[in-house]
Amino acid sequence: MDIGEVLIKRKLLLIGNFVLTSGRTSPYYIDLRRFPSFPEFPQVVDEALAKIKDMNFDIVLGVATGGVPLASFIACKMNLPMGYVRVEKKGYGTDKLVEAEVSNKRVLIVDDVATTGGSIEKASLEVSKSGGNVVGALVIVDREEGARDKLARLGIEFRAVFRISEILRSVSEKLNESERKLILDYLGGTR
Amino acid sequence: MDIGEVLIKRKLLLIGNFVLTSGRTSPYYIDLRRFPSFPEFPQVVDEALAKIKDMNFDIVLGVATGGVPLASFIACKMNLPMGYVRVEKKGYGTDKLVEAEVSNKRVLIVDDVATTGGSIEKASLEVSKSGGNVVGALVIVDREEGARDKLARLGIEFRAVFRISEILRSVSEKLNESERKLILDYLGGTR
Repeated sequence: MDIGEVLIKRKLLLIGNFVLTSGRTSPYYIDLRRFPSFPEFPQVVDEALAKIKDMNFDIVLGVATGGVPLASFIACKMNLPMGYVRVEKKGYGTDKLVEAEVSNKRVLIVDDVATTGGSIEKASLEVSKSGGNVVGALVIVDREEGARDKLARLGIEFRAVFRISEILRSVSEKLNESERKLILDYLGGTR
Repeated sequence: MDIGEVLIKRKLLLIGNFVLTSGRTSPYYIDLRRFPSFPEFPQVVDEALAKIKDMNFDIVLGVATGGVPLASFIACKMNLPMGYVRVEKKGYGTDKLVEAEVSNKRVLIVDDVATTGGSIEKASLEVSKSGGNVVGALVIVDREEGARDKLARLGIEFRAVFRISEILRSVSEKLNESERKLILDYLGGTR
């Protein structure tokens, strides 16, 4: 599967001038929340399973809501229990941040995208408070803005099915000149 | 599986005097969000698949976030696309209410619990706005407070893996006298 081609075709990856909520600009925008509704998703699940086949964990926790479909598919395929973890507190009711029984369990955190690793770090803290032990984290796309290093410092083994630099490099060949320049400048400047 | 026994054992169903947010009182409290983290969940998935085996749909949509695990397991087992639908609008960003490609698709809505059917009705409206057609709805537990009739009026075929009256009736045999009286009064008074 040429993941870049798929993401562009499904409009999950856009190339252009984007202003992020942080104020920074980015030459691409990625949103994988709709990915499970496209026929290429099961193949991504298979590639995700291959990435984690050497890891040992008892339960899979999706970061709500974007990480829950992949977490569920992994649990379904591996016949493991699963649940989800919220990283923003809801304002009412008996909602817990960790919606799973994780006490004394080895936990794999799953999300759709990682940027700085902040969401996975928060999720991991909540899992610890609930008595679980996060051993690893898996995402579909690593945006390569610090997640790997941050999570390594926390003792969390981090795996990504795809890295954004690889995706952008493969995509850049099919762009027009100005778009390609945006992407190559970005890739040259950040790594 | 004795579902009542499982729900009590896993503390997903509590018996007592509960005041709901609407101000009404209830002799039971049910919260299935942690259910996928217990070993009985795959059996519930199998029973859910049996309940919908005569239905025809192209995509499975979970009501976020409680309905997303079951929606994902069904999609995983049936090899179908899936996605999710929010019934409360998030305040920021490009979040869509329907996170799936549903245009011209026959949609099965999935949630953990149905009460009056309001969430499923809202989800269905959002799916319609996105060009999809909700043909059915599936929940794990029907609390039997109007969902079936409301959804029938909307032309949505409604299926529940379990009904709360059956669960409470089976559970009541193992309760102490005062708890049993609460439950039997409730069952006698509401249906």
